[in-house]
Amino acid sequence: MNLLLLEQEDFVGDNEVLLKDRRFAHLKDIHQAERGDSLRVGMLNGLMGEGEILDLTPDSARIKLQLHQPAPPKLPITLILALPRPKMLRRVLQGISSMGVARLVLINSYRVEKSFWQTPFLDPSAIREQLILGLEQARDTVLPEVIIEKRFKPFVEDRLPSLAKGTIGLTGHPGYYPPCPREVKGPVTLAIGPEGGWIPYEVDMLQEAGLDPVQLGERILRVETAVTALLARLF
Amino acid sequence: MNLLLLEQEDFVGDNEVLLKDRRFAHLKDIHQAERGDSLRVGMLNGLMGEGEILDLTPDSARIKLQLHQPAPPKLPITLILALPRPKMLRRVLQGISSMGVARLVLINSYRVEKSFWQTPFLDPSAIREQLILGLEQARDTVLPEVIIEKRFKPFVEDRLPSLAKGTIGLTGHPGYYPPCPREVKGPVTLAIGPEGGWIPYEVDMLQEAGLDPVQLGERILRVETAVTALLARLF
Repeated sequence: MNLLLLEQEDFVGDNEVLLKDRRFAHLKDIHQAERGDSLRVGMLNGLMGEGEILDLTPDSARIKLQLHQPAPPKLPITLILALPRPKMLRRVLQGISSMGVARLVLINSYRVEKSFWQTPFLDPSAIREQLILGLEQARDTVLPEVIIEKRFKPFVEDRLPSLAKGTIGLTGHPGYYPPCPREVKGPVTLAIGPEGGWIPYEVDMLQEAGLDPVQLGERILRVETAVTALLARLF
Repeated sequence: MNLLLLEQEDFVGDNEVLLKDRRFAHLKDIHQAERGDSLRVGMLNGLMGEGEILDLTPDSARIKLQLHQPAPPKLPITLILALPRPKMLRRVLQGISSMGVARLVLINSYRVEKSFWQTPFLDPSAIREQLILGLEQARDTVLPEVIIEKRFKPFVEDRLPSLAKGTIGLTGHPGYYPPCPREVKGPVTLAIGPEGGWIPYEVDMLQEAGLDPVQLGERILRVETAVTALLARLF
């Protein structure tokens, strides 16, 4: 936790918050915080700044805030990701949040196991929890937008063309395609497939919607590694 | 497992192997392989090619090999990594192996917890296991070299200058440094710190050994994310 992320309901006065939950336990046990300590704080979807611990009891911390600094800019990308297996989903959510992805669309694909859609990690509160862990890691305050689209075809046919319009549209896919571009100068729409990759029909559909296939070398990477590698290369 | 990786002791005849272990279970349970199936195979530290399942019993598979293709080239990098916490170490080992890192040096740093050095995941057999999982993922056969240097100062003073000589020497560190270069044209020596980062003394020592500090933006990434992002940006 490189940033203590605060919400409206934490406030007990002007610029003062009272913490009792996971964040308090983390301050006490991991940071071994003491009264008077200064720490980095941020308001969820708002400004960042410094906090000073005014008071520390066995079960709460009262902190005074000075918020003045905007959050780091987001990467201008809509990432369309075939739903990963539940355990990987959590790490991917944290990862894309920490890297600053602006918008994530989780979609179905032929090679996504149906059971993956049953995971409790897809509950809005569970998604939010992982995104917040990513923000705390990276020192950001702004939640990425997450959209869940269970059906591939209607999304790709009806919604994707307008999402991708005016952006650099890319589908990550191994094969004889151009390499993924580097250091792009505009917004991107990037689709990354499941373990085992997209099927040819899906690559064609994505291309019709404006996303051209690009490759990342002959090595086959795990989804979470591929996501990080593609983002680092693009921006 | 995108590649079935074989070793000398698997051979039961010219170009024939007999499998009974984890790899056999994976073929049977995950790939649901059947007699006559063709699959990608590779010889550890050797060639890759195709295998044909000649025979499948309840507890073994006999496979005929045709090996003709060299493994993909390694990234020309020596990655010097402050020892991560055990759980992350395993994922980092898999990740760097799948991305093709040629050589990894695990070193101590002021912010590495002493207990991390006690983990069984540092046993040579445990390290090898994770590296092999990475090779199977990426379709590579050549194990990265892994060197363990428990003492920071002697390594950085005595061994690092000659390792780094003639390479692009970089230390990943947040701060007012130049951004990490992109798409470099030569071998690299890259040092990545622990959670919490290097201490200034360490950054100075690394610089004296030929590794100049570079940054990757204002976001603080987890070690495994930073490793992938830096490799993707450099190569």
